[in-house]
Amino acid sequence: MSRYRGGFTLPGEAGYEELTLKMAEKWGADVIRDSDGTVLSDEITKAGYGIYSTICIIRDHNAWAKEHPGRLQQSFLMAGPVMAVDEHLEIPVMEQFFAQQFRVNDSSDAMRFWQVWDRTEATLVSPVCPAGTAQTGGTQSPEKSGEGTAQTGSDGQPGWRYDRETQSVIIENARPFHRYTVSFLAWQIWEQISMYNHVTNDWGDREHLVPIDPVYPDVQEYLMDWLENWCREHPATTVVRFTSLFYNFTWMWGADARNRNLFTDWGSYDFSVSPLMLDNFEKAYGYSLTAEDFINQGKFQVTHMPPTQHKRDWMRFVSAFVADLGKRMVDLVHSFGKKAYVFYDDSWIGLEPYGPDFKRIGFDGMIKCVFSGYEVRLCSGVDAPTHEIRLHPYLFPVGLGGAPTFMEGGDPTADAEEYWMRVRRALLRVPMQRIGLGGYLHLTEDFPDFQDYIEKISDEFRELEALHRSGRPADTGIRAGVLHSWGKLRPWTLSGHFHETYMHDLIHVIESLAGLPVEVGFLDFKDVTDGALKDYDVLINAGRAGDAWSGGDVWKDPQLQVCISKWVYEGGTFIGVGQPSAAEGTDTFYRLANVLGVDEDTGAKVCHGKWTFDTADPQGLVPEGCALPVRGGRFLTDGKAQVLLSHDGYPDLTRYRFGKGLGFYLSGYSYSPENTRLLFNLITAHTGKRAEELLYISKDPKADCAYFPEEKTLVAVNLTMKDLETQITLPDGICLLNIPAGGQCIIKQAGSVLSE
Amino acid sequence: MSRYRGGFTLPGEAGYEELTLKMAEKWGADVIRDSDGTVLSDEITKAGYGIYSTICIIRDHNAWAKEHPGRLQQSFLMAGPVMAVDEHLEIPVMEQFFAQQFRVNDSSDAMRFWQVWDRTEATLVSPVCPAGTAQTGGTQSPEKSGEGTAQTGSDGQPGWRYDRETQSVIIENARPFHRYTVSFLAWQIWEQISMYNHVTNDWGDREHLVPIDPVYPDVQEYLMDWLENWCREHPATTVVRFTSLFYNFTWMWGADARNRNLFTDWGSYDFSVSPLMLDNFEKAYGYSLTAEDFINQGKFQVTHMPPTQHKRDWMRFVSAFVADLGKRMVDLVHSFGKKAYVFYDDSWIGLEPYGPDFKRIGFDGMIKCVFSGYEVRLCSGVDAPTHEIRLHPYLFPVGLGGAPTFMEGGDPTADAEEYWMRVRRALLRVPMQRIGLGGYLHLTEDFPDFQDYIEKISDEFRELEALHRSGRPADTGIRAGVLHSWGKLRPWTLSGHFHETYMHDLIHVIESLAGLPVEVGFLDFKDVTDGALKDYDVLINAGRAGDAWSGGDVWKDPQLQVCISKWVYEGGTFIGVGQPSAAEGTDTFYRLANVLGVDEDTGAKVCHGKWTFDTADPQGLVPEGCALPVRGGRFLTDGKAQVLLSHDGYPDLTRYRFGKGLGFYLSGYSYSPENTRLLFNLITAHTGKRAEELLYISKDPKADCAYFPEEKTLVAVNLTMKDLETQITLPDGICLLNIPAGGQCIIKQAGSVLSE
Repeated sequence: MSRYRGGFTLPGEAGYEELTLKMAEKWGADVIRDSDGTVLSDEITKAGYGIYSTICIIRDHNAWAKEHPGRLQQSFLMAGPVMAVDEHLEIPVMEQFFAQQFRVNDSSDAMRFWQVWDRTEATLVSPVCPAGTAQTGGTQSPEKSGEGTAQTGSDGQPGWRYDRETQSVIIENARPFHRYTVSFLAWQIWEQISMYNHVTNDWGDREHLVPIDPVYPDVQEYLMDWLENWCREHPATTVVRFTSLFYNFTWMWGADARNRNLFTDWGSYDFSVSPLMLDNFEKAYGYSLTAEDFINQGKFQVTHMPPTQHKRDWMRFVSAFVADLGKRMVDLVHSFGKKAYVFYDDSWIGLEPYGPDFKRIGFDGMIKCVFSGYEVRLCSGVDAPTHEIRLHPYLFPVGLGGAPTFMEGGDPTADAEEYWMRVRRALLRVPMQRIGLGGYLHLTEDFPDFQDYIEKISDEFRELEALHRSGRPADTGIRAGVLHSWGKLRPWTLSGHFHETYMHDLIHVIESLAGLPVEVGFLDFKDVTDGALKDYDVLINAGRAGDAWSGGDVWKDPQLQVCISKWVYEGGTFIGVGQPSAAEGTDTFYRLANVLGVDEDTGAKVCHGKWTFDTADPQGLVPEGCALPVRGGRFLTDGKAQVLLSHDGYPDLTRYRFGKGLGFYLSGYSYSPENTRLLFNLITAHTGKRAEELLYISKDPKADCAYFPEEKTLVAVNLTMKDLETQITLPDGICLLNIPAGGQCIIKQAGSVLSE
Repeated sequence: MSRYRGGFTLPGEAGYEELTLKMAEKWGADVIRDSDGTVLSDEITKAGYGIYSTICIIRDHNAWAKEHPGRLQQSFLMAGPVMAVDEHLEIPVMEQFFAQQFRVNDSSDAMRFWQVWDRTEATLVSPVCPAGTAQTGGTQSPEKSGEGTAQTGSDGQPGWRYDRETQSVIIENARPFHRYTVSFLAWQIWEQISMYNHVTNDWGDREHLVPIDPVYPDVQEYLMDWLENWCREHPATTVVRFTSLFYNFTWMWGADARNRNLFTDWGSYDFSVSPLMLDNFEKAYGYSLTAEDFINQGKFQVTHMPPTQHKRDWMRFVSAFVADLGKRMVDLVHSFGKKAYVFYDDSWIGLEPYGPDFKRIGFDGMIKCVFSGYEVRLCSGVDAPTHEIRLHPYLFPVGLGGAPTFMEGGDPTADAEEYWMRVRRALLRVPMQRIGLGGYLHLTEDFPDFQDYIEKISDEFRELEALHRSGRPADTGIRAGVLHSWGKLRPWTLSGHFHETYMHDLIHVIESLAGLPVEVGFLDFKDVTDGALKDYDVLINAGRAGDAWSGGDVWKDPQLQVCISKWVYEGGTFIGVGQPSAAEGTDTFYRLANVLGVDEDTGAKVCHGKWTFDTADPQGLVPEGCALPVRGGRFLTDGKAQVLLSHDGYPDLTRYRFGKGLGFYLSGYSYSPENTRLLFNLITAHTGKRAEELLYISKDPKADCAYFPEEKTLVAVNLTMKDLETQITLPDGICLLNIPAGGQCIIKQAGSVLSE
């Protein structure tokens, strides 16, 4: 039985009342919740716990939806490309898509947005309208006008029509050996999370839940009535847990089992589309969007690429709508004396917790499911009264990628340890009010070691939570900025979880930063030219050429280059990872090559000789065990960069002195305790000290620690599952520590345990 | 002593007359030559051999050059980029360059071509002219007008002047933290091959030879006189061996020993520049070139990148000039009853053996130094009466990259074997009249095994030479085209030797093709849209995105895509290697993805799911021992490509059926006997047979063979230094063979040696 109690949300399960209450006691729960697929019985709801009730507001309305088939959510999809081999081409639009998820919307209201493209020559094909089946789409978006000009529908020119019977677009006068695509609107006939949970748990005949679209006034009216009724019928509920609001992140499934996942982007807005939302947008913004603003040649508007202004406008417009209606719902919940929390996953599109609309919705709490440290920071930083993290593994038989969890072959305790090692180091840095679990509690019965481990870490959590209530932990005072296209709108994330974004250097950097005693800010390129660098000591740009994290064409702006160069010259530290500041078109590929002393050859410099160099680490910046991912093609610009790591004659880690400042280049980065220490050493380099020479830093990088001055308490945590010895410099001397495998040490009156 | 005699050019050496004549006998030489650094004595020249005399026409004129300092060859160089940190910036223009190679040309005739660029904002800085030291350059070239617009020289605007004393460009009103470069003209004060041989052989005080520029009429007059005199004074010379004509390939050396090689491009025209040539060009073409046409942001116009029209115009102009003057010299040589051969290396710029001007020069022979099979094809295909290959190693103490050859630690026989294994398989396919060596003959004295090996291979050569005189060897009749930016102007090469271009997939492909019984053609993109594909069964495009070998932006031409797609659909085979047909801007990165069934994600599709696949080789196209270089990011477009090789879930080798045709994709390619067989299998795939199922093909890929029908003779060669058993299908049965390590088997009346 836990020594402490509180701050813990337990997933209860009707039919397992005894287990529910036993675990609530063991884990120190103060709240019990339901989950997707479970309900709570009266015996549970009346046991004296706070009760969270999960609602996914836009689904579970199948009966109403059946009577209102024109009120489902929609999305633009692209069929093809299909190559014409003669002048007649038929494209069955749904062929590539999972028929249980989508249904063609071939209403005339939708078809005005359909587009057929000749992708070979980037021209729009005109519709021919034998029976009024199709009209021309909206005006071509200005941003695309350079690439696409509408073909006239005159004789001999390609023209398309839609055949409802075969659900095919038919192109006559097609140009042989040109590629054609069809952008069309489709209804979503299975809500994605329902679909995922259904398929993952093999729910068989259980009804497929459909998502209804609150953009329609009658849907809003219906949902407000429904919510009011729900609140009335759930008196035991203390907190309504919204999952999240109205529009899911994009998740398109394919027809073929070999390619089931067509497109998944945790941050994109494709599923907020409807003719009405598009019309409303045009009224508000004075210009119209077309299918191509979403389809984007079949690439979609992936979060990992720099957003167009059209995309930013659409996001802003949808977010305002979501906030308006969300606030009406939260107000309604409040009127019943209940609190409203939001679960920041799944249908979170339009929520944007760091956007300008979030605060006015009025949520009382923010819940985030976490695998990693950065997600703790993401949650903790949101402006809401209460923050809660839902730990993993989820109490399901299978976890990530279908791997077994709570079933034969699974090791949920090992999974939980792995995640906790990452999560806890971020909990050293920032306050978090609550933790919790989700899923089927009964699955833990066969895993008593998991039950014990959750007891252990919930106590560890409560120790940290209490310390944070005493005041902020000491930090280095160093201010590090992460520079990318999204800036402070989307700090502490790329697009989803770590395992979905591991191929991006930046998520590894952010994961390292999540546990460092550094003040971390996020800024976009406009922030830089607006003067934001004065608030930073260190600036990090980490990404692949052309992506949202490196920045892409924005780097062609001379003012941006000048601002950063000047700031480094005057003493700033610029850390570039991967292809920082990369944009083709001038003498260097990295636009800040002059600050890094390193550039990359993309082919044009294959005949240029390269500076030879020695590899050495005189400042001791590279800890033992450090191993960076390496990439070829990098070279020294003027031979003056000091190469700390290299492979096959390519520099992998370099240090360059520019004026009073420093430029560090890393050809790649991956999260590990040792690499984190390397990054920390680069961040502290301008002080002339390595990280371990500062106060309150573990000498061994495999431990992290925090000192809470108000309580005179030092907390140190072991990041590994092996016992570990380390030492930490305090103002009065050195503290020697043994931290057990995966353990957490609390040293009160830390000054009194100094070694000689 | 050799069984045969003839077709062999031996480097003689005064002071080693006995050795010279002994080796001439042993190797069956019919010709003796001098080399850079050696002379022939009367005892040698009067021994009854043909005599080649090497002349590098533009050097060895130091006395005359001293009296005419304005007649040296020149080049554009770029100083910087240097970043301004305040409004005053000084750029010492020669700081980066090897002072023994270049001297600034700051004459007013040259300075009108100087340019100072603000590379941060891509603008030209105007000169300020306090004492007429500088004038504005030529008009900005039209191709660059989008990027660079001249800044006005008005007050407060940046302006530059040149300080002769410090050899620096001084920029006032520089924009702080902008990068500036200076493009200037420099005299070449050390001819590059003289410089290389001098440094390599440690020639100490020997005079540095300077290159004079025959663009000036007085230089032409001087050289014609000199040549006439030379011919008169060298009655023993039977062949004047020009090395080559006037302008060397580009080879810029740097000031710092850590970065001595700044830029080397065997195919670029930078060293043909002079104010007079530029002025003459303007008169002929009606527009002027600027420094930036050559400097190109410091990237220069490297052969590996697609040429601009300006570059093509310049090449054509220089080539016409070289041919005009070259013809005058060849005519003069002929008037003395001597022959004129050209050595196609070193100062070959403007020669272009496959260009429209070559034939009229009137050379009697083409000599090419070879390491590889493709160079044999390059030499053999030139329209000249006699073709000769100079084998490696060169008789110097050190060879490639300074590795020891004819000195302690060297193994010249092993080197010779390695090169001969590559060279000989091409000699199976095409006729070659002569072979030879170069350098210091006396160095072979300590390597008798080398002397023996040369005897062996010169006999092998003569056997092949005799067979080719009987008629063409049988081939498969399959016509394969190699598609790149240079097409038939530059077949059978990229830019220099294999070891200089090994990082390009295409040189490996070409090396494989050099020994295959396939009719190989080279074509450029205009050839395709002009209808050339009707003459081909197979088309190969192998390169890196944006380079001259893949093709770059030319792939945005819909007509090009249509031509190839249609041709494949109707039965053609397209083989794409690396990043074939790659150009950003549309739905696919490879513009022929529809023909390949494979595309590559450059970042925008990181959230797209990918088709899973099985890896199998049901047709048996992949020989044992085959190993391709692999690259990530590739994926199947529609899941229908058959994956033959893969790694980490990425397809490396695929087969795709498009209409009646085939698309093969290889993520990379490297030369080896086994990979060559793979390539051959792909080339024959449209016949429904693997290569070994065809006539006159060795079953074991580590042997190559050729059948000469006129002589009813089969030749088989072992590509390895291990004994090898193989079998070859003849029309009447199968021939079993044992070929000794590195050996060559000649089977006369091949039909009579069939096994049962």
